[in-house]
Amino acid sequence: MAEKNSRLGTFVAGDEGSWRIVRMDTPAGQPLAGASRMNVVAGETRGDAGRWVLRGVTSNERYVTRAEKHRLVATQEALGRPASTCAALIPIRKNDAWWQLPQDERRRVFEEQSHHVRIGLDYLPAVARRLHHCRDLGTQEPFDFLTWFEYASRDAAGFDQLVARLRASEEWRYVEREVDIRLVRDAEG
Amino acid sequence: MAEKNSRLGTFVAGDEGSWRIVRMDTPAGQPLAGASRMNVVAGETRGDAGRWVLRGVTSNERYVTRAEKHRLVATQEALGRPASTCAALIPIRKNDAWWQLPQDERRRVFEEQSHHVRIGLDYLPAVARRLHHCRDLGTQEPFDFLTWFEYASRDAAGFDQLVARLRASEEWRYVEREVDIRLVRDAEG
Repeated sequence: MAEKNSRLGTFVAGDEGSWRIVRMDTPAGQPLAGASRMNVVAGETRGDAGRWVLRGVTSNERYVTRAEKHRLVATQEALGRPASTCAALIPIRKNDAWWQLPQDERRRVFEEQSHHVRIGLDYLPAVARRLHHCRDLGTQEPFDFLTWFEYASRDAAGFDQLVARLRASEEWRYVEREVDIRLVRDAEG
Repeated sequence: MAEKNSRLGTFVAGDEGSWRIVRMDTPAGQPLAGASRMNVVAGETRGDAGRWVLRGVTSNERYVTRAEKHRLVATQEALGRPASTCAALIPIRKNDAWWQLPQDERRRVFEEQSHHVRIGLDYLPAVARRLHHCRDLGTQEPFDFLTWFEYASRDAAGFDQLVARLRASEEWRYVEREVDIRLVRDAEG
């Protein structure tokens, strides 16, 4: 068995896990099976116990410019903040038309038309995020991307607005499957 | 066991295979173990019989523009031509500095400084190629890319020139490991 990619993250949903699933919507395509809890596992898959398991690797940026990266890095905060008791996992798959576009046209849709980075910046540092890529794993995966978001409960309405703005964008016309899973963390102690 | 990605290609080197290895050079980093033959397997890994096995998936383009894609598609030919009795497998790994660059700077190095597409076009349609990505597989892989080239024996000197021009480019300053494997196909019948 080959060693796992150290950038691999795994989301295991079922009856146990430190995050409680409070809502699952399916804006596009097939839903995922219902589950009550989820674990976020860094690096390794812990068995196959879950009702479903989604995997993806963090990777280099595909669209952002140096200037955008500077603005993001200057403003964003890390995952794992004590106040971040809310989270969302949003797996999406884009259609063939998207993947057939050359790089310059995907970039144009992503930012010049859809303002993906500019919209995201409006919700920093309240919302922390990590993007996982699944499309180029060696295995057939049901989604292309898994994005994990964390925020405080007071920022939940802002997060809803962020998601709604992105969903209304030109870029989202290429999204053929999307599930929106909201979670809350168990209070410690 | 999860189903394999249908874009996965596997290169299995050892004592058998339809391609005979005639030369292995290591322009940068650690060499691969010696082997006399290689098989190119579409989709599935056929056992673990090889002395070494390299895997990667074909994927969307990361740098080319619409105009460049048009020129490439209009000029290139497919793999598997009867006259293509020569092949090369060139696995490379780029360093962290490359992967930390934002997209616009990687593009600038790739084409505006290194003319990767423009140089490649000079050798079309003689050289056919397929690029496999390994960096975002779920497993830890020794290389980021595997490029497979096929050409007729009369175009071997041209291929050497292509490789030399790319190796002299700004982009190759980011290559920290590279192995250059040359192969010939067994005559049929």
